[in-house]
Amino acid sequence: MRIGVLTGGGDCPGLNAVIRSVVRTAATQYGSEVIGFRDGWRGLLEDRSTPLDVAAVDGLLTRGGTTLGSARVAPEKLDAGLDTMRRTLDRHGVDVLVPIGGEGTLTAAHLLSEAGVPVVGVPKTIDNDIDGTDLTFGFDTAVSIATDLIDRLHTTAESHQRVLLVEVMGRHAGWIALHAGLAAGAHLTLVPEEPFDVDDVVRLVTERFARGDSHVIGVVAEGAHPLPGQMAFREGGVDEFGHRRFTGVAQQLGEELERRTGKEVRATVLGHVQRGGTPTSFDRVLATRFGLHAAIAAHEGHRGQMVALRGTDIDLVPLARAVARLKTVPASRLRELHAFTG
Amino acid sequence: MRIGVLTGGGDCPGLNAVIRSVVRTAATQYGSEVIGFRDGWRGLLEDRSTPLDVAAVDGLLTRGGTTLGSARVAPEKLDAGLDTMRRTLDRHGVDVLVPIGGEGTLTAAHLLSEAGVPVVGVPKTIDNDIDGTDLTFGFDTAVSIATDLIDRLHTTAESHQRVLLVEVMGRHAGWIALHAGLAAGAHLTLVPEEPFDVDDVVRLVTERFARGDSHVIGVVAEGAHPLPGQMAFREGGVDEFGHRRFTGVAQQLGEELERRTGKEVRATVLGHVQRGGTPTSFDRVLATRFGLHAAIAAHEGHRGQMVALRGTDIDLVPLARAVARLKTVPASRLRELHAFTG
Amino acid sequence: MRIGVLTGGGDCPGLNAVIRSVVRTAATQYGSEVIGFRDGWRGLLEDRSTPLDVAAVDGLLTRGGTTLGSARVAPEKLDAGLDTMRRTLDRHGVDVLVPIGGEGTLTAAHLLSEAGVPVVGVPKTIDNDIDGTDLTFGFDTAVSIATDLIDRLHTTAESHQRVLLVEVMGRHAGWIALHAGLAAGAHLTLVPEEPFDVDDVVRLVTERFARGDSHVIGVVAEGAHPLPGQMAFREGGVDEFGHRRFTGVAQQLGEELERRTGKEVRATVLGHVQRGGTPTSFDRVLATRFGLHAAIAAHEGHRGQMVALRGTDIDLVPLARAVARLKTVPASRLRELHAFTG
Amino acid sequence: MRIGVLTGGGDCPGLNAVIRSVVRTAATQYGSEVIGFRDGWRGLLEDRSTPLDVAAVDGLLTRGGTTLGSARVAPEKLDAGLDTMRRTLDRHGVDVLVPIGGEGTLTAAHLLSEAGVPVVGVPKTIDNDIDGTDLTFGFDTAVSIATDLIDRLHTTAESHQRVLLVEVMGRHAGWIALHAGLAAGAHLTLVPEEPFDVDDVVRLVTERFARGDSHVIGVVAEGAHPLPGQMAFREGGVDEFGHRRFTGVAQQLGEELERRTGKEVRATVLGHVQRGGTPTSFDRVLATRFGLHAAIAAHEGHRGQMVALRGTDIDLVPLARAVARLKTVPASRLRELHAFTG
Repeated sequence: MRIGVLTGGGDCPGLNAVIRSVVRTAATQYGSEVIGFRDGWRGLLEDRSTPLDVAAVDGLLTRGGTTLGSARVAPEKLDAGLDTMRRTLDRHGVDVLVPIGGEGTLTAAHLLSEAGVPVVGVPKTIDNDIDGTDLTFGFDTAVSIATDLIDRLHTTAESHQRVLLVEVMGRHAGWIALHAGLAAGAHLTLVPEEPFDVDDVVRLVTERFARGDSHVIGVVAEGAHPLPGQMAFREGGVDEFGHRRFTGVAQQLGEELERRTGKEVRATVLGHVQRGGTPTSFDRVLATRFGLHAAIAAHEGHRGQMVALRGTDIDLVPLARAVARLKTVPASRLRELHAFTG
Repeated sequence: MRIGVLTGGGDCPGLNAVIRSVVRTAATQYGSEVIGFRDGWRGLLEDRSTPLDVAAVDGLLTRGGTTLGSARVAPEKLDAGLDTMRRTLDRHGVDVLVPIGGEGTLTAAHLLSEAGVPVVGVPKTIDNDIDGTDLTFGFDTAVSIATDLIDRLHTTAESHQRVLLVEVMGRHAGWIALHAGLAAGAHLTLVPEEPFDVDDVVRLVTERFARGDSHVIGVVAEGAHPLPGQMAFREGGVDEFGHRRFTGVAQQLGEELERRTGKEVRATVLGHVQRGGTPTSFDRVLATRFGLHAAIAAHEGHRGQMVALRGTDIDLVPLARAVARLKTVPASRLRELHAFTG
Repeated sequence: MRIGVLTGGGDCPGLNAVIRSVVRTAATQYGSEVIGFRDGWRGLLEDRSTPLDVAAVDGLLTRGGTTLGSARVAPEKLDAGLDTMRRTLDRHGVDVLVPIGGEGTLTAAHLLSEAGVPVVGVPKTIDNDIDGTDLTFGFDTAVSIATDLIDRLHTTAESHQRVLLVEVMGRHAGWIALHAGLAAGAHLTLVPEEPFDVDDVVRLVTERFARGDSHVIGVVAEGAHPLPGQMAFREGGVDEFGHRRFTGVAQQLGEELERRTGKEVRATVLGHVQRGGTPTSFDRVLATRFGLHAAIAAHEGHRGQMVALRGTDIDLVPLARAVARLKTVPASRLRELHAFTG
Repeated sequence: MRIGVLTGGGDCPGLNAVIRSVVRTAATQYGSEVIGFRDGWRGLLEDRSTPLDVAAVDGLLTRGGTTLGSARVAPEKLDAGLDTMRRTLDRHGVDVLVPIGGEGTLTAAHLLSEAGVPVVGVPKTIDNDIDGTDLTFGFDTAVSIATDLIDRLHTTAESHQRVLLVEVMGRHAGWIALHAGLAAGAHLTLVPEEPFDVDDVVRLVTERFARGDSHVIGVVAEGAHPLPGQMAFREGGVDEFGHRRFTGVAQQLGEELERRTGKEVRATVLGHVQRGGTPTSFDRVLATRFGLHAAIAAHEGHRGQMVALRGTDIDLVPLARAVARLKTVPASRLRELHAFTG
């Protein structure tokens, strides 16, 4: 059998570990071949590929990024290119395609699958917002990096009696903010799922200092936003891929808080450092198991599915389900969070 | 309401985070009080306690160890002390006891519960071998530390063309070895669940060097052991608490391999460093959620139960179930592991 | 003897380690007392203090920030407050004052010393720009954090074929950029000591991609700036303490590069995370030795001096020398850097 | 010009960074070629080599180990092989040899140099015991790893009221123990330079617990040993390379302490994890500067010298001086250490 692999979308620790695992499983368990397509769907659109054998993936387990490269392709280009991509796959004798990617990549994978291309997907999202799987690789690494950095900010905020707002990733879902906020003991965590009331935030800050607390650490998902009409909030709009644009919410809120509380406020945007570098052990295991089970599924004839974590098992779920809706933080988890606010 | 808390058994990153979470939840969500008993069951046997309010648990989220102390108590002493412990609880007006501990602690908790003491348990085990919960806090930290250290050993083994055997925790269950072995890309992983065949290990080492590979990294759970009769293996026996004793299996296997393959072999025992220090973000979140839900369960009248992770939810499971058997690595996970051996 | 201690200026990992070391040395080696003044010079101006004994500094070695707090005070307020500060010291029976701080704090210390107050200073600067000492604590931690984060950005830049500009601390001196640039293998490092030629930077970026390199990592000190007249560069000016203001140079240069090279460019500002959290082992040792030798110097009657690292020894240098000029990166070190550009 | 490079002795983080730096400097600054010899002196004895260009050293900056391999060769073999090695160098047209290694490697380098071979050495020692240089790369990484791990052990010792003895590297010199002991706040640090008095250690342990302290952390260099006649201490003797053999001093002392104090004592040997993996930023900068200046010295005609750190500068010192004696911890640094004992 011949398996095609590609990686789409933004960077995510564990992509290389999935590639390695697919290649090793195909080669050592089934004697199959793997071909990698470069720069996401572009590799199929422009027919750029590279053979992947066990030697080629040596050392990839611990390395961040993706050795196949990645690029964002606008949805309409994908729609228009379905036939081209199918021809590329045929030309290379690919029996099953294993696209590793996020919402956009899996939506395209679903389209290809509906059009008859044999596909087994692997979900990838730093933000943990793909439905149908308990968790995705990269998320634990992002939370871990954010937590380490927020741990560092605590002592500075404490020594200088400041409010520190840390903006973490999460445009549509607040998973990173939720976990990093709990893990780092933030006094306030703002997520896109629940518009924040600026008056409440002002009150929380004022009350903490009033009762002698030395500082306030707030974790703010980049997609968080105030209740309509508050703070003269500047919206970022939506980009060509349908992604919410950067609003600098922490900076905007920081200026408002400084104005209204008289306290020194600093906003820090963690940005790209959350996406790169070696994966945590958790993500390496998850990525390795995803790759292993994707290769097994490919060989066992499953199609139109995606690997997924359910409890401690790796299962298959239909691509259709995975792309039907975004997995946001449910109300029960927000209630947990509120128990640690203030 | 008044909640009693104690921590039992060996050290485990996240214990303090659970204590903090129980105290904060009880205080801020229910206006309840918490009293901590010192050094595990000994605190109940000898009536040594300390009040725990929100100020007392400040800063505990990130700190390893347990501010309440811990001590191992022989099972027969616990049996004999049931009445004493119950009297201590009565004396302090404790409505529910929340013991945080491993197999031994939860067995005692189950006994107390059967004897009518209101108990909500929190499972704790570095080794991840408590049944009824997907995972326990501390395990991710242990795997993470082991993986970081094995990453470091790779380059030395490679530069000096050595076999390096790394002994990790896991006397009865190989979870840490399984995960660290996968995460660090070990060429060989030995677990207690599956006695190893020394001839196979010799063959794997010989074949790797024969085909030009520079080194071999083996991860060995401390409870791993060879097939009966092989290697003149010296068993460690069982200690007073029923725990399998240290056998130095990596050292024993290393000497055998050096003798039979002629290669330079080094054995490293990671030991206590796997148990201490600040928890990973994953374990801080899990410990915090365990503490939160234990406090909620205590207030909602659940008894004889233990909090447990099921998928992404925190559930309750009967203590009886948790202590009925040890959770060892199932055959399906061992098959996954074998795909990455060699 | 009675020693007064205060910490001034911005946060810096190792401040607490110095405090602990002064207190332990004074108490255990000389039987002396230590009193801490809160929030830098403000503690002397407003007479806010706290006694510091060995128990009070327990656990401070590994903790970031400063338990005494810190605050910036405008130079003219310090000048006007000399008598007030002297009276506070007399009121508390302080025999020697040990101010721990940067250029501003040491300048004030020098004034006090000239006015007859017994002073032994400890230099503190994240930026490593205090003259008279080889290195200062906090610098290694800042470089270490920056290097870890740039390591992470490498893989993302590589996978997405980007130019990544990382802005690190250093308004007047480029030490952090120099060291982090060398340590992280940056292809380009820009420092305040040497205005950069935008045309050269454009050429370097273009040439790297032209010869097939996958990405460019540039490390930019926040005080770096282009040759006069280039890029329509917006200067930040100078704040009330005489400190150069934030210009967002990485962001400005990034926009220029994107415009002129057509490549995707991202700018990341590391910011406060470089200043906080637990010090590296290097900085803990240096801070501990600084505190030890400051306490020894205080007891041996040295005055108007500051502790300093010279090779592997801790020496004393006159405060007058330390504040006479800023220690910037010399030409020889810039030449070293240029060998690794491109 | 053609430069030969080899790496000798035990593993040390930064070896690859030196190789990369020599190659890049030679290629980009002088247009020279570099050839690498494999497995230390063996590469010269058995004529095994590999060309090293800029592409070959890509990515080496951050990687532990040595891409050239290393092996220990007994001194008498080196003596006998001088002519063979010289012929190998001639055969490959090597103008200058740059051996990177410790005491053994530099002694051989000195012999070669005396015999007329053009040599510029680079000192390498985890233990920091080479004379003539303030510091060597690898040392900071070893101290940093040891400190991180001892930080972790603190909380376990505290929670379980134990004595924890941590054995670190340092057979002849106690630099790692000195720095890690200071950095991790050990209550006791034992080094080879000063035989310890077991009675004093027993007293320190007893007194700490007597005054209510929760635990004792001792850092023990592997070459530490008791006063003659104490503890029935089993010496390890000396191996074929003249190196002191492993005595398991922490384990031996631990058993003695347990017997005499009645406290629970655990001994942990950190071992090889101190030697491997990515270098700290400090060591990356030092290794890079060593390689740069070795290449410059080679091109400027310096011979029989070794690069060395003096303050913040890289200097040259005669190989003869570097190998004349071992650099042990001086009395002044031991006095500093004693201020933090107990």
